[in-house]
Amino acid sequence: GPARPTALAPDIAARLRRTPDGLVAAVVRQHDTGEVLMLAWMDDEALHRTLTTGRATYWSRSRQEYWVKGATSGHHQYVRSVALDCDGDAVLVSVDQVGVACHTGTRNCFSDELPVTGPQPDGLPVTGPQPDGLPV
Amino acid sequence: GPARPTALAPDIAARLRRTPDGLVAAVVRQHDTGEVLMLAWMDDEALHRTLTTGRATYWSRSRQEYWVKGATSGHHQYVRSVALDCDGDAVLVSVDQVGVACHTGTRNCFSDELPVTGPQPDGLPVTGPQPDGLPV
Repeated sequence: GPARPTALAPDIAARLRRTPDGLVAAVVRQHDTGEVLMLAWMDDEALHRTLTTGRATYWSRSRQEYWVKGATSGHHQYVRSVALDCDGDAVLVSVDQVGVACHTGTRNCFSDELPVTGPQPDGLPVTGPQPDGLPV
Repeated sequence: GPARPTALAPDIAARLRRTPDGLVAAVVRQHDTGEVLMLAWMDDEALHRTLTTGRATYWSRSRQEYWVKGATSGHHQYVRSVALDCDGDAVLVSVDQVGVACHTGTRNCFSDELPVTGPQPDGLPVTGPQPDGLPV
């Protein structure tokens, strides 16, 4: 159950499957383009506030406090819709993002591409030089 | 640090910020349409396997074992790219999804819309009847 007092509707709370520290993952996307902006964390009360205030509200794991996105940066996230996933451990939050989502100044937080070296379905490697004459 | 043996490159492992049970969130999207398909969990080794085998591999919190998406269902996820987020607690996995992503049979796992009752930027409520003459 939730660690902190919450006004979240009990029928929603009962469907959540939380991490050991009481959180669900919040995948945040721009409502019209579908761009995945960031991932944040919500406890029950953060989800309640997100559903009822129109502003995306998260739980900061590092600061251990609620965090209304944009409150200090001006990069508000106006909530358009929220969907819970099939096993209750994540919500998909569709927002209208003002400015940039990432505190680093980029539009989204996923700027750090990792090297994918596995085979692709067509048998060609993802990275490295391609054989002459084959499209990359 | 990781709880299980892993071949993940140390420079990547050093950038991860894990849940108390040693996991990062994996946001999975269809590479071309951008549709958010599901959220799953990865420990270091699941991330390593995802980066090096071409097949999305997760850690099952309920079964406490590795799980190659599609191994039993046939709904394979071929990995196109993986990006780490700015604070290291989530990866965005772009895949080519065969069939449906959700075990319930829907294309994505976010079918459970929650009621959003907060105000919108224009001051109109999201739900409930609209005043006569105003666009919905």
